[in-house]
Amino acid sequence: MISRIYRESLGLLTDVYQLTMIYGYWKKGINNKEACFDLFFRENPFQGSYAVSCGLEYVIDYLKNVKFTSEDIKYLKNLKTDNGEYLFDDKFLQFLKQFKFKCNIDAIEEGRLVFPHEPLIRITGPLYQCQLLETPLLNMINFQTLIATKASRMYLVAGDDPILEFGLRRAQGFDGALAASRAAFIGGCSKTSNLLAGKLFGIPVSGTHSHSWVLSFDSEEEAFRSYSEVMPDNCILLVDTYDTIKGVKNAIRIAKELKKKGKKLIGIRIDSGDLAYLSNKARQLLDQENLQEVQIFASNALDEHVLTTLKNQKSKISFWGIGTKLVTAYDQPSLEAVYKLSAIKDTNGHWVKKLKLSEQKNKINNPGILQVRRFRKDDRFYGDMIYEINSDSDNTIMVDPNDQTKSKTFSYDIFDHEDLLKPIFSNGQCVYNTPSIFDMKSNLLKELTFLDNSIKRLYNPHIYPVGLEQSLYETKTSMILELRSK
Amino acid sequence: MISRIYRESLGLLTDVYQLTMIYGYWKKGINNKEACFDLFFRENPFQGSYAVSCGLEYVIDYLKNVKFTSEDIKYLKNLKTDNGEYLFDDKFLQFLKQFKFKCNIDAIEEGRLVFPHEPLIRITGPLYQCQLLETPLLNMINFQTLIATKASRMYLVAGDDPILEFGLRRAQGFDGALAASRAAFIGGCSKTSNLLAGKLFGIPVSGTHSHSWVLSFDSEEEAFRSYSEVMPDNCILLVDTYDTIKGVKNAIRIAKELKKKGKKLIGIRIDSGDLAYLSNKARQLLDQENLQEVQIFASNALDEHVLTTLKNQKSKISFWGIGTKLVTAYDQPSLEAVYKLSAIKDTNGHWVKKLKLSEQKNKINNPGILQVRRFRKDDRFYGDMIYEINSDSDNTIMVDPNDQTKSKTFSYDIFDHEDLLKPIFSNGQCVYNTPSIFDMKSNLLKELTFLDNSIKRLYNPHIYPVGLEQSLYETKTSMILELRSK
Repeated sequence: MISRIYRESLGLLTDVYQLTMIYGYWKKGINNKEACFDLFFRENPFQGSYAVSCGLEYVIDYLKNVKFTSEDIKYLKNLKTDNGEYLFDDKFLQFLKQFKFKCNIDAIEEGRLVFPHEPLIRITGPLYQCQLLETPLLNMINFQTLIATKASRMYLVAGDDPILEFGLRRAQGFDGALAASRAAFIGGCSKTSNLLAGKLFGIPVSGTHSHSWVLSFDSEEEAFRSYSEVMPDNCILLVDTYDTIKGVKNAIRIAKELKKKGKKLIGIRIDSGDLAYLSNKARQLLDQENLQEVQIFASNALDEHVLTTLKNQKSKISFWGIGTKLVTAYDQPSLEAVYKLSAIKDTNGHWVKKLKLSEQKNKINNPGILQVRRFRKDDRFYGDMIYEINSDSDNTIMVDPNDQTKSKTFSYDIFDHEDLLKPIFSNGQCVYNTPSIFDMKSNLLKELTFLDNSIKRLYNPHIYPVGLEQSLYETKTSMILELRSK
Repeated sequence: MISRIYRESLGLLTDVYQLTMIYGYWKKGINNKEACFDLFFRENPFQGSYAVSCGLEYVIDYLKNVKFTSEDIKYLKNLKTDNGEYLFDDKFLQFLKQFKFKCNIDAIEEGRLVFPHEPLIRITGPLYQCQLLETPLLNMINFQTLIATKASRMYLVAGDDPILEFGLRRAQGFDGALAASRAAFIGGCSKTSNLLAGKLFGIPVSGTHSHSWVLSFDSEEEAFRSYSEVMPDNCILLVDTYDTIKGVKNAIRIAKELKKKGKKLIGIRIDSGDLAYLSNKARQLLDQENLQEVQIFASNALDEHVLTTLKNQKSKISFWGIGTKLVTAYDQPSLEAVYKLSAIKDTNGHWVKKLKLSEQKNKINNPGILQVRRFRKDDRFYGDMIYEINSDSDNTIMVDPNDQTKSKTFSYDIFDHEDLLKPIFSNGQCVYNTPSIFDMKSNLLKELTFLDNSIKRLYNPHIYPVGLEQSLYETKTSMILELRSK
């Protein structure tokens, strides 16, 4: 994970202002006040109705390894304000150097369906430690959750057809690719082209040849024959270097030659042009020659929407190579998750709930120490209730935060329930065994079947019910009214 | 750079198919054929008329350090096809293990203005080595060029106002942030919030406090006072935790207290709401109290378009904090540069030009060993000519590739000229001294003044003339006709 990949120590992987605030807390003597922060997003990405949590394994690895090295301290020591004053004093830097993570972390596991305003991670611990984590945790969770969600949307459209992730060359940097390959696999992709992601995460890899292979020979036929000779067990031919239909005919020649040797052409790949028309034409030419076993791979700026139209047009594609649109989440390249203080302990050791006001209702956070309870019946998810863990409520009534006149009552006789935030770290010690990415993925694919189709559809999906437990709703409302009246 | 940041060896930072092709070339005994590849993009990003080259320092570091470790070889050795056959044989893996970079690299320097179809990097060397580099070079150049371009657009709108890059939390992974901080600085940003980017690249860093600082105290006024006490030389107050106007009034109280101590409040920051209205109201309140020196910082989903409207509305903002929209290049998160074979040496040692056909004219590459010549007169750029370095032409006539009836003639008596591709590696040895990122940035800002305003504008910009030297145009046309007639 992150510490395995990055040579740099992780302490500085944060915003300057986290350290200036920590410096302030330390100078004011309140750095060890116990605080609670939630990491959550406010809107589903891609105009969809769900997201797929992802990135926790990176977070765990970060938390196990975060520290400030002597080199980091030396860098910080030399930072100056615009006035030429040193930004931090030496005693503070000594304090930083002794940083040892000791928070409690509860989080929703990777490969789970998640929804707006649900805490994906809840952090409780010394205020200054919580503060440091804001930026790196957002960086890791924001991106991987976004990509796992994007991949799952393509998975839902592709059905049984495998999706191959090809994004390395167009990704936003090295781990814009690596983390994306991991998240895309968890979200439903079958393989990646990224060899390093294969090595680091154990994702199955896949790939054949490019146009430059074809151009390196005197003719396309010679190029195809050469490829089939060196790759008799793994031969997929890219047919559109010069002319796709002529390319298919050349590939058919090779397929027959392979057949005579007891081998087979696995497939042809089309990377340009009208994929609906060309895949049908190619299928027809292949079938005429009794090459039903040769599969058609397609690539070229594909996403869930193009996949939908190609499926609707009865294209004959059975493997989808997806790059740029997936690994950059092209139509919405950021999830915009946030990290908000929800409670802080007073000097008497009592939790004081906190919320940040905003003119936009959707931007006001939920106060208190929160948990998310999911209600299920007959393999169907019925709603998620955000509730306070320290309240006396029986957690049966859930209020729609956007319309208080709407509520749902969940009877524990009728519904199964699960609390989604699981203990990950206790006093800085990891208490969680991370499942394999294969398990995360199969869990996700199962959970997707528990979600009504109307919620999963790409266009104008239904909203999945996520609400506030009644007493939490009331507490929040009265806090807002009190703050506004000040 | 990349080898300093990443612990992993860099050999596997590529697509599987590069290695299957290398395997094929090696098996066919043509791996050492000399080839020439160009890396270029086909369309300017953001519907603009230029781009800013960036990422070369990463590429250089990659090329100095790329190799296959024993661990990489072990990983490759165990890869299997879907049939259960090993993908690579041992002798090939031994060959890979001895990989030693020996290509020639010519490239356009970082912080230069670049345009579609101009080779940003030209790679000549053994076919298999060129092939390996395709994916990693695209990854590095695609992203950094995109972000440097985006930053330069914001710089052009912001004028003298500093732009602060705040993107780490929303970036696509760790180096989606790090590389973006670097590219954004080269493209025109003044500072970054990213401490690690500060440490690694020497970019000036900046940051103050967040809403959670305010929420950690009993009142906003107390929070502001505390911050001013611990940060008397670096005090910028975030005023919108509860109510922006009340926040400004609290900040004014603190500004007066600081003044009495001989210090000053540097600024206030507004992170939500109507920035045009609020910044004017805040300015008015500050000025009434003779606090003209207190600057107004703004953030919240800013990009060059929002900046433009805020400037047009005479907002009173003088520092711009820009995050998500910059570091993800939100409106176009990928540049889509490509890497194409342009020539290969035959067995007699003669270069054979290569091109890949396409139904779309814009997707047909330029054949041969190419250079880019920029013509300048009186501190104004007049056009870029792509020409073959081995041709006998006098390089004066440039044909518009989209309309052969249009051409320009450049007289060497009237125009200064510069060949943009500079030698970077010769036979695998680096022959280039990378300038500092400060020099790259100041070069860019100067070059931007050489570009006509009509080309730099955000909306419907003029197209900068980039053409093919006449004989190259003719060669390309006849090659296309010949290939189409086959």
